Amino acid sequence: MKKVAIVGASGYSGEELVRLLLHHPQVELTAVTSRQSAGRTLAQVFPKFASHPKSRALRFSEPKAEALARQADIVFLALPHGVAAEFAVPLLQAGCTVIDLSADFRLESVEVYKEFYAREHPAPELLKKSVYGLPELHRAQIKDASLVASPGCYPTSILLPVVPLLRAHLVNPQSIIADSLSGVSGAGRKAEMDYLFCECNESVRPYGVPKHRHLSEIEEQLSLAAGVKVTIQFTPHLIPVNRGILTTLYLAPTEHFTDAAAFGEKVAGCYQSAYGEEPFVRLLDGEALPDTKNVVGTNVVEIAWRIDSRTGRLIVMSAEDNIVKGASGQAVQSMNILCGFPETTGLI
Amino acid sequence: MKKVAIVGASGYSGEELVRLLLHHPQVELTAVTSRQSAGRTLAQVFPKFASHPKSRALRFSEPKAEALARQADIVFLALPHGVAAEFAVPLLQAGCTVIDLSADFRLESVEVYKEFYAREHPAPELLKKSVYGLPELHRAQIKDASLVASPGCYPTSILLPVVPLLRAHLVNPQSIIADSLSGVSGAGRKAEMDYLFCECNESVRPYGVPKHRHLSEIEEQLSLAAGVKVTIQFTPHLIPVNRGILTTLYLAPTEHFTDAAAFGEKVAGCYQSAYGEEPFVRLLDGEALPDTKNVVGTNVVEIAWRIDSRTGRLIVMSAEDNIVKGASGQAVQSMNILCGFPETTGLI
Amino acid sequence: MKKVAIVGASGYSGEELVRLLLHHPQVELTAVTSRQSAGRTLAQVFPKFASHPKSRALRFSEPKAEALARQADIVFLALPHGVAAEFAVPLLQAGCTVIDLSADFRLESVEVYKEFYAREHPAPELLKKSVYGLPELHRAQIKDASLVASPGCYPTSILLPVVPLLRAHLVNPQSIIADSLSGVSGAGRKAEMDYLFCECNESVRPYGVPKHRHLSEIEEQLSLAAGVKVTIQFTPHLIPVNRGILTTLYLAPTEHFTDAAAFGEKVAGCYQSAYGEEPFVRLLDGEALPDTKNVVGTNVVEIAWRIDSRTGRLIVMSAEDNIVKGASGQAVQSMNILCGFPETTGLI
Amino acid sequence: MKKVAIVGASGYSGEELVRLLLHHPQVELTAVTSRQSAGRTLAQVFPKFASHPKSRALRFSEPKAEALARQADIVFLALPHGVAAEFAVPLLQAGCTVIDLSADFRLESVEVYKEFYAREHPAPELLKKSVYGLPELHRAQIKDASLVASPGCYPTSILLPVVPLLRAHLVNPQSIIADSLSGVSGAGRKAEMDYLFCECNESVRPYGVPKHRHLSEIEEQLSLAAGVKVTIQFTPHLIPVNRGILTTLYLAPTEHFTDAAAFGEKVAGCYQSAYGEEPFVRLLDGEALPDTKNVVGTNVVEIAWRIDSRTGRLIVMSAEDNIVKGASGQAVQSMNILCGFPETTGLI
Repeated sequence: MKKVAIVGASGYSGEELVRLLLHHPQVELTAVTSRQSAGRTLAQVFPKFASHPKSRALRFSEPKAEALARQADIVFLALPHGVAAEFAVPLLQAGCTVIDLSADFRLESVEVYKEFYAREHPAPELLKKSVYGLPELHRAQIKDASLVASPGCYPTSILLPVVPLLRAHLVNPQSIIADSLSGVSGAGRKAEMDYLFCECNESVRPYGVPKHRHLSEIEEQLSLAAGVKVTIQFTPHLIPVNRGILTTLYLAPTEHFTDAAAFGEKVAGCYQSAYGEEPFVRLLDGEALPDTKNVVGTNVVEIAWRIDSRTGRLIVMSAEDNIVKGASGQAVQSMNILCGFPETTGLI
Repeated sequence: MKKVAIVGASGYSGEELVRLLLHHPQVELTAVTSRQSAGRTLAQVFPKFASHPKSRALRFSEPKAEALARQADIVFLALPHGVAAEFAVPLLQAGCTVIDLSADFRLESVEVYKEFYAREHPAPELLKKSVYGLPELHRAQIKDASLVASPGCYPTSILLPVVPLLRAHLVNPQSIIADSLSGVSGAGRKAEMDYLFCECNESVRPYGVPKHRHLSEIEEQLSLAAGVKVTIQFTPHLIPVNRGILTTLYLAPTEHFTDAAAFGEKVAGCYQSAYGEEPFVRLLDGEALPDTKNVVGTNVVEIAWRIDSRTGRLIVMSAEDNIVKGASGQAVQSMNILCGFPETTGLI
Repeated sequence: MKKVAIVGASGYSGEELVRLLLHHPQVELTAVTSRQSAGRTLAQVFPKFASHPKSRALRFSEPKAEALARQADIVFLALPHGVAAEFAVPLLQAGCTVIDLSADFRLESVEVYKEFYAREHPAPELLKKSVYGLPELHRAQIKDASLVASPGCYPTSILLPVVPLLRAHLVNPQSIIADSLSGVSGAGRKAEMDYLFCECNESVRPYGVPKHRHLSEIEEQLSLAAGVKVTIQFTPHLIPVNRGILTTLYLAPTEHFTDAAAFGEKVAGCYQSAYGEEPFVRLLDGEALPDTKNVVGTNVVEIAWRIDSRTGRLIVMSAEDNIVKGASGQAVQSMNILCGFPETTGLI
Repeated sequence: MKKVAIVGASGYSGEELVRLLLHHPQVELTAVTSRQSAGRTLAQVFPKFASHPKSRALRFSEPKAEALARQADIVFLALPHGVAAEFAVPLLQAGCTVIDLSADFRLESVEVYKEFYAREHPAPELLKKSVYGLPELHRAQIKDASLVASPGCYPTSILLPVVPLLRAHLVNPQSIIADSLSGVSGAGRKAEMDYLFCECNESVRPYGVPKHRHLSEIEEQLSLAAGVKVTIQFTPHLIPVNRGILTTLYLAPTEHFTDAAAFGEKVAGCYQSAYGEEPFVRLLDGEALPDTKNVVGTNVVEIAWRIDSRTGRLIVMSAEDNIVKGASGQAVQSMNILCGFPETTGLI
């Protein structure tokens, strides 16, 4: 049994980590921290976990790195961007494995970090050490990582469908348009007017147009896959569901095809070879199109694609649970890999 | 006082027409028809109108053209595509003005109709006579029309933002990508599994990919504006709200600009000149982006745009109420025009 | 044209007052105040009103009584409980008519105020002067009032169905159980965790059990109607809709009836005589039961009742829009009465 | 490994049974039937199960008793009321254990059945044999049952809170008022107008007032607990959530108490003794009140209570997932008991 801790366990990703780790058969949840909930038990903060035997014994503590390093082998950081890095440094020095759900270690380039986050990176030496924790694309590196930068929800919904196509040179890397729809939990558990029930219900709206922060990690990863610097178009929208991201991608095939069926076979083959054996990627066949209600609560990404012979474009659509595959489930998947557990442990 | 009737008044568009016409100061609603509701009063079918004095007197009848022609000067058809045409013919012959909310008379080309609707057009001679009822773009023709083909909800949300840009040659007509999100009322009041509460709530999904029927009228209108045949990319999505369409458009400027600010001024000027005086188009300024909750229940379309200097694209976003500006409100706006009423009568 | 002002216009009730008063044909909205929005125009704070000609001219100001007294004949106070009273005093002294949407002047008894609000009443002399602004029950007094205490949303949904039955001695005043379901706007536009989208969506919960503050005004009004001190059972619940209150009332007939039909005729007669001519009370007949979707956006209350011959109880159900009939619409209705306008002006 | 089958697996309860039984470690799901889905695989009918290895192998079949009896030891019937009984007879004769989720075998009295269901009972001899499958109240009988009548969602939400109080003579059996709020899945997966998204969203409404069918089983069970014939008041409401039932109960203590604290201790003791060790009943303490979002997706019922010293009443509130504890989870709990598995197997 590995000992695990969660720093920042009172947000939506933290709460989902609690759920997953409490039921994971090979780990013991030994500590949860939260500034505002310190002193209260899991059962008091999250009534929905109150039936679990540990929920009355486990009490939120103040986030302190030394204490955590004694309590846990693996520490999950579910903290706001910018705050995570300062926790990671002492934990790594004390020998813990760190799985960070923030954006702090997702980039390779300190310049890009500065451009998008408007500050110097607080621990630039760790950027080289960190591994981008998207298991389907970087499984080998995750195996040996001590610092995993677990990807964000939007990047996961875009990278999984696009990277195989770029690696296979099937689509033009400069043609990518990603139109994403996200549930409100993506904004975090923050007491802000914009996320009140009456401001979100019966409302649909774009935001962060045209330059959203997550673009930095998406473009860096796509550039790695394509072998050239990639710039994409990305528009996030807020829709009135608790959970779920639906991304629709508009892509230009690398060369003008005259035979849509032949190109379609290449796409099918590309996805089959990339994800045919992946337990958490579901390639839809027949008439089926992705629907967030089919993935909510699971670690699965649904992917479907269509060739539009009228426009010559390839349309790819993905659906995921932004808090599971887009955050906490993916982080547990990385943990399973680096601990040598079967990858689906505790996730189905 | 003009006498008006609604054929097919029990669907969502029909119901909204009832609301608008009951409160319109210059018309009298003399007949409402519906096969399944025939014999019942307005108050019985729609309890929400039961406080209106006419709601207990006005009774649904079977849809019969001769009777309608005696009862009304203007007849609104809120019928399924394909059914509307057969009603329009005798009504027009009897001298009625017809405002049709179906797709039956929206196209000029019988070939395109056959391609998209998989049948011969039932009244091809009327296609020449009908006017596409988008007042902001075709006001002059509506003035003299006896048959108005009132546009659909998706077309309205796309044509209003795009046509002025095409007319001004600011964007490449072959570059258009329209990603649209629609509330469930867009599917009509039909007892189908797909539109049950539990199948739509906490769900987001694309549908009709890649060739949706509404493409035909969108592309025909865009082609007229551009002066060349236009083919666009269009993806509709279903989201869990009752009403509202949010469309995000990805457009390529006609020439590669080096000066985003200068191009922005052209776009601003184009929209200002097209819609600066329009009562039902709201050009957002400053940081504001469209939000369906700001237009639901009104006949207003919100439009905002951004130039992405990273990608060189122009992003335009629109929001409307699919049942008002996307259907019944727009039809009443056309009625106001052809009757010579002030255009906003009964709509604000 | 009367000049009217709204103090506290940035909350949900304030926003609805803005909507109603902007379109009211006999008043001019001359001032809107809000601490947090001071300096911004109506169009900036509420994009949905941006199409109204006054929305760019009218700017939020700091709430200052002297200025308001110069700008308006009638001042609406849409302020939190406790804050309203301090504004009312100088406005009344300056000769304004005040319509207060808070609970500050709804009680007659300073002792009850202290018991439920845990403080001394700030202006006890005004309690005698104020009129409880429920037009269907107190129309005559409202006519001459200079200070109207407009009722809360829960009280309206309970008093309208119950008072006529008490006045007619048809139900036992000590038997009343009111089970109420409210939309989230009832909690106000406050940035609190409890009212975030993800905390309310897919959630139903009771709150304030067993002693909610609104009990004080409900019981005082019921006691006046019954002629004896009345204590009731009241349980509010929060449900995931923006607007609407549905109240189900369990009542014991005053005497054990052997003839349900005869008792039913008395109930029908009682309601018919109380509300048969009321424009904003809709007595449902036949099989119909109240549904909030039939009243949202309107000033109407729906009422239906059933006698359960198995238990001997009378069940009465009401539905209203908590922000319209439960707040701002009702306040405008009172204004219409005291100004001598037709009572439905600007409300249908 | 026990072999299990589900008859009527395409409705909401059937779907949830599929989920629970696919992941249950001690059973093998060998057959699923559905008239409308016959011939299609689990993966085709329910894309959300498509990642499970059995989802492509297991195909829906026509419901045929002989075939089922060969394929399964235990058969779950998730059929409409009235249809279930005809399937149960041959399955029982063939030696299967039957767990029926319909109302067909929940009553002891054929007269009550006829009164509420307006027909003769199709298999009256089986009424004596069947066991009412509410494990917390009838565990011993379930152990030896061959026919379990699994309770409905409303009855579960009422019986669990009330029966212990009746058994302990703490509340007057004739005083019971149950006000229940149910998510839309309670209406089943039926293509009816009333349950369309746009008819339920932003709507709250009572229905089936005053005599709902489920009253029959509720009152029979309460009468058994009280030792006298019990008649209750019950009002169901439809609210816009997918899942969840929240019931608020109004109860009169058996004798007028002068000491609320002393009575409260009796109530606390009663619930502690009834449910203190129950894995699926969560007695809330402190300030906590039930909230459906804390139980959705689980087999847990939350219960809280308050004494209102002003009215002398006891208010008890419960929350459950109508499809899990109110249907399929409870049925699996009964299966665990009669198979001798640990009772929580596959349910947490």
